[in-house]
Amino acid sequence: MDDTAVGAIRTALSERFGEDLAVDPALPGLDELARIAGHCSHRRYLPRPVAPELLRLLCAAALSAPSKSDLQQCDIVIVSDAAIRKAIAATIADMSWIEAAPAFLVFVANGERLPLLARLRGKPFLNDHLDAFFNAAVDAGIVLGNFVRAAEAVGLGCCPISAIRDHPGVVDDLLRLPRRAVPVAGLCLGWPAGPGEISPRLSLGTTVIENAYSERDLAAEIDAYDRRRAQLRPYRRQRNLARWGQAPSYGWSEDKARQYAEPTRGDFGNFVRGKGFCLD
Amino acid sequence: MDDTAVGAIRTALSERFGEDLAVDPALPGLDELARIAGHCSHRRYLPRPVAPELLRLLCAAALSAPSKSDLQQCDIVIVSDAAIRKAIAATIADMSWIEAAPAFLVFVANGERLPLLARLRGKPFLNDHLDAFFNAAVDAGIVLGNFVRAAEAVGLGCCPISAIRDHPGVVDDLLRLPRRAVPVAGLCLGWPAGPGEISPRLSLGTTVIENAYSERDLAAEIDAYDRRRAQLRPYRRQRNLARWGQAPSYGWSEDKARQYAEPTRGDFGNFVRGKGFCLD
Repeated sequence: MDDTAVGAIRTALSERFGEDLAVDPALPGLDELARIAGHCSHRRYLPRPVAPELLRLLCAAALSAPSKSDLQQCDIVIVSDAAIRKAIAATIADMSWIEAAPAFLVFVANGERLPLLARLRGKPFLNDHLDAFFNAAVDAGIVLGNFVRAAEAVGLGCCPISAIRDHPGVVDDLLRLPRRAVPVAGLCLGWPAGPGEISPRLSLGTTVIENAYSERDLAAEIDAYDRRRAQLRPYRRQRNLARWGQAPSYGWSEDKARQYAEPTRGDFGNFVRGKGFCLD
Repeated sequence: MDDTAVGAIRTALSERFGEDLAVDPALPGLDELARIAGHCSHRRYLPRPVAPELLRLLCAAALSAPSKSDLQQCDIVIVSDAAIRKAIAATIADMSWIEAAPAFLVFVANGERLPLLARLRGKPFLNDHLDAFFNAAVDAGIVLGNFVRAAEAVGLGCCPISAIRDHPGVVDDLLRLPRRAVPVAGLCLGWPAGPGEISPRLSLGTTVIENAYSERDLAAEIDAYDRRRAQLRPYRRQRNLARWGQAPSYGWSEDKARQYAEPTRGDFGNFVRGKGFCLD
């Protein structure tokens, strides 16, 4: 079993990072490590429901994640009402899997409870600034990541949807989010209809730093990644041909540069401030 | 094996949330789910090093997490230089485990690459606002959570350290963080010296929402949690006795209200803006 897991880990990480990593076959938990290393997003699902009891179990597992100062600032909204899900999906173009997925969740950064604790216990709340918002958002990210692990452990597939923040006011209204609570990401969930594809990543030389950042040629690193990725997983279509035309070589850098050449979520800051967070 | 795992999951989640959850024994991956549900922080470690190859393997596994729009905005700094770690620890009171842990990492939200892609590919970067910062921070949270899962899979224990943001400028200087890169959390890592303690959490009735938030009596929910937690895991000492005195009943709400009655990280927003992020 472990020999298989060692091979699965090395294959997945080699495909992902272009590096052959050492794996000690004597380590426990290699099956689990293989699932973590082999993570794939899934956007197509079998027509098989996710039982409500399983959904609740996965939420509990996810909410067992570490939480900044034990503040517990992530909530999970299970969107079982088809009309609500449809209304959320209507704000997002080109993501048919949001409506098609057997289950859909929203992870919420909830900073509502912290100032309430101060009021309940007769204390001043002296930390209404960026850190409070930051902690709640990062906590939600940790819980989201943990949920994906729990879901993949039992064989489910996921696709996080940050685009629910494209029109956060709509989601806010639909889910009746409290003051100081903002959506962080949605999550499509279901039993995968097929195998996933490993998404190649920047090399570990770019993203894992020993002690301190040093001078480096990021342009060359990104170029090498573009080329490694193009061999394994070339983009199937070029983004916004009307504006940018057909690029002779289209890699990650071109795709992301095109994506962020369109203004998006410029009102997110106003939304967050409008919900009662101070970002000073 | 699965029967044991079912019992372990139900016991851990009952202790955590005060609720007896249904677990289908036919599900695959229950051992892994049991580890997720049984997560504990560890602050005391055996005097046994974490091999550099294992650390790199865990970083690779962690960086296999989902990433917002494939932007890959989390870096991991492995702090192997004892002087750097000591200087970080010196900014944080009462956390001896930062220096004592066999390994110490820093998870960084790195927004440096995104505008660089625009420059490299001759495109405008039209999204320099809160969302860019938010995405990088949440990505770092997801990778941090994934790292904890990978570490616990092989038997390691972790303790995240958000207090590295108490004096972010010091960490920034020591790690020579690039422009638009900020520390999100540190992480102590090692082979646990003993069993951990499950941290009881707010009930799922408070943090798992069906479709939309409704009117609720949060004060009563928090009070019930204070009482449930006091039975299982009473606080060993009261925070800031000099200012607040001895409370006859000291629970989570009192502890957190006292913690946030002291100003902390009021300069985090200025630090983030100073690093080049726009928070509008």
